[in-house]
Amino acid sequence: MSSLPEIPTRIYLDHAAATPLEPAVFLAMEPYLRTQYGNAGGVHSEGRLAKQAVTAARQKIARTLGVRAEEIVFTGSGTESNNLAILGHLAALHEAGRTYETMEVVTTAIEHPSLLALWPVLAAQGVRITYVPVTEEGLITREQLAAALSPATVMVTFAYVNSEIGTVQPVSRLARVVRAYEEKVASSIWIHLDAAQAPLWLPCERLRLGVDSMALDAGKCGGPKGVGVLCVHERAKLRPITYGGGQEGGLRPGTENVAGIVGAAEALALAQAGYESRAQAVAAVRDAALARIPALLGEAVINGSQGEARVANNINISLPGLDTEYAVVWLDTHGVAASTKSACAGAGSSRSQVVYTCTADDARARSTIRLTLGATTTLSEVTYALDTLAAFSAKMHELTN
Amino acid sequence: MSSLPEIPTRIYLDHAAATPLEPAVFLAMEPYLRTQYGNAGGVHSEGRLAKQAVTAARQKIARTLGVRAEEIVFTGSGTESNNLAILGHLAALHEAGRTYETMEVVTTAIEHPSLLALWPVLAAQGVRITYVPVTEEGLITREQLAAALSPATVMVTFAYVNSEIGTVQPVSRLARVVRAYEEKVASSIWIHLDAAQAPLWLPCERLRLGVDSMALDAGKCGGPKGVGVLCVHERAKLRPITYGGGQEGGLRPGTENVAGIVGAAEALALAQAGYESRAQAVAAVRDAALARIPALLGEAVINGSQGEARVANNINISLPGLDTEYAVVWLDTHGVAASTKSACAGAGSSRSQVVYTCTADDARARSTIRLTLGATTTLSEVTYALDTLAAFSAKMHELTN
Repeated sequence: MSSLPEIPTRIYLDHAAATPLEPAVFLAMEPYLRTQYGNAGGVHSEGRLAKQAVTAARQKIARTLGVRAEEIVFTGSGTESNNLAILGHLAALHEAGRTYETMEVVTTAIEHPSLLALWPVLAAQGVRITYVPVTEEGLITREQLAAALSPATVMVTFAYVNSEIGTVQPVSRLARVVRAYEEKVASSIWIHLDAAQAPLWLPCERLRLGVDSMALDAGKCGGPKGVGVLCVHERAKLRPITYGGGQEGGLRPGTENVAGIVGAAEALALAQAGYESRAQAVAAVRDAALARIPALLGEAVINGSQGEARVANNINISLPGLDTEYAVVWLDTHGVAASTKSACAGAGSSRSQVVYTCTADDARARSTIRLTLGATTTLSEVTYALDTLAAFSAKMHELTN
Repeated sequence: MSSLPEIPTRIYLDHAAATPLEPAVFLAMEPYLRTQYGNAGGVHSEGRLAKQAVTAARQKIARTLGVRAEEIVFTGSGTESNNLAILGHLAALHEAGRTYETMEVVTTAIEHPSLLALWPVLAAQGVRITYVPVTEEGLITREQLAAALSPATVMVTFAYVNSEIGTVQPVSRLARVVRAYEEKVASSIWIHLDAAQAPLWLPCERLRLGVDSMALDAGKCGGPKGVGVLCVHERAKLRPITYGGGQEGGLRPGTENVAGIVGAAEALALAQAGYESRAQAVAAVRDAALARIPALLGEAVINGSQGEARVANNINISLPGLDTEYAVVWLDTHGVAASTKSACAGAGSSRSQVVYTCTADDARARSTIRLTLGATTTLSEVTYALDTLAAFSAKMHELTN
């Protein structure tokens, strides 16, 4: 890799796509990369040390999320955790005798691709997919959710924090709507929360949130890529989606990624330990930056919500008429890492499905810029990014007028 | 982790379960853990660096396996690679209009749990699973394979190297049997090879082997745990088994595990670069050790095959009547890491399905000990292990007589 160019001083504003690995996480992982190489399934000392590390990591995450260690399932990504919860629960219902044609999943059209991509697959099996409309800010309201539920509803699933526009759903209030409906019609509805974007900024205790399962991704909160966590209330209500050895209680086979699992536990614990003060500090930077936008970029429209319903580190604006794919490239050449959408939404498609769903405004949905801050991002960094964007916008207007 | 005991000087003879990470692999991974944290889906410099690393890793593995880079799919484990190839190909056929009831998979009963566990799932969908009988040494013969094929056969799948008894299948000769049958009945049969145990000891060029797809696991050949590779001839003939972003050409969604992927490429390249001399040297140690067994352990029966049909680093013996689960614990307390079976087969079940299938001998299948050597294992280490096992056996006989 010696031929790759050095990165100069950079302003990294794409923390929603990937976070730097915390140094403490690296230190926790290193022994399991360098010297402790046992397979956690071995009965010898090397195997037992690996097993102990996995067990300790499981307990640490359980403490962090306020649940029993048995609830924690390690996977290969946030995507896989979402897949396991949703496909796994519907498969369990199917195995118990319920046909797919009688099942309904209630969700929204602004979810991450790891949810959105499941719907055609399930629909092909006969599952009904119902999309709760969201507000222009991306919020699910209790009224709209209540109206979407039906006696066929077996699952309600959405993201805690929208990965593009940063909207934070009122999870526990929405969960109570579902629980009230469950009681009324004497049905059973599984609530799965995609919490991948939450741990650094918001409380992630499953019981307080009132959900049945919750997907997390170590690589989005200071941990290693390639490790997901599924926190799940009743494992018995899930079937695996891959098959092999009995690892993870039969729910996720394959030799345990010991170093990655240890790193995920350290990262999640660190993320949750300080989330309140971190969110407060970063939101202050974010709000100061947002306040400058009208003066700098008169045409900018802010996507997402305001105040507590916006995750601390997210700025998402549309600059209608501007080629923001090009703006991101321009920003990059000027030292700023930004994005237009979720990295998983792909570089190819040019419209934000999230913003289009919220606003039905094609020009707005085709001109998004997302800046996602980290704990150490300064106001001068964000200001520099916005100034650079304003210069780009001015230049483009000059060229086209 | 500071409370865990120090491991004293150890003799590690469980390389089939997990290999130490090669120092060069760690060095290759380290930048992508410590400083290059970009998401390979980002368009900025951080993202492009990550993408370049993934692309370079893909090319390196492709060169190593003698295929085009497009053939390489990164997954989360060898287990997932096997699942993706098998479930993914049958799903593609199903999507193309073929019913599961008209499909047959030809395999053996001595495969790894990541194949064995798929059969009940596929059988429940109507797929016929046909087991080719193997010889007492675990070999698939051309005659038995030919007899098992039928016009319904859509897939033939087995392991290159048996993970328990080390039997090496004559892959290219078996593939030719399948190709001849394909031609005769004008059908199309996908050959999937579970090559997880092969890279350190045997050639792994897909074209020379004559198979359509091949599963590998970085953690079994000097690389990191949590990274699998699927080398696949025609991606179009596979459907994904998980859903999300478009990573890995839509076959395996989720943010790329950049560090792990870089490590996997380095490990596979190192493994294959020196496999012939490594295999020769280790087989010499192995054979010298095997030669001592009759004198040391008169009751020992060697499981698996001899000569070239046995992977260089495998010793697997049965000590009928002896509690070898206990023997492994005894060996461990005397400094030796060994196992009875595959780590994925679980510590709970006490009979080797592999040895029972080969021999139909219950006592033999319940008394297996597997010693799998590494490149640096010395004859004195293996001799010490066998001496310790002989002492255990003598002690047990003394106690029970």
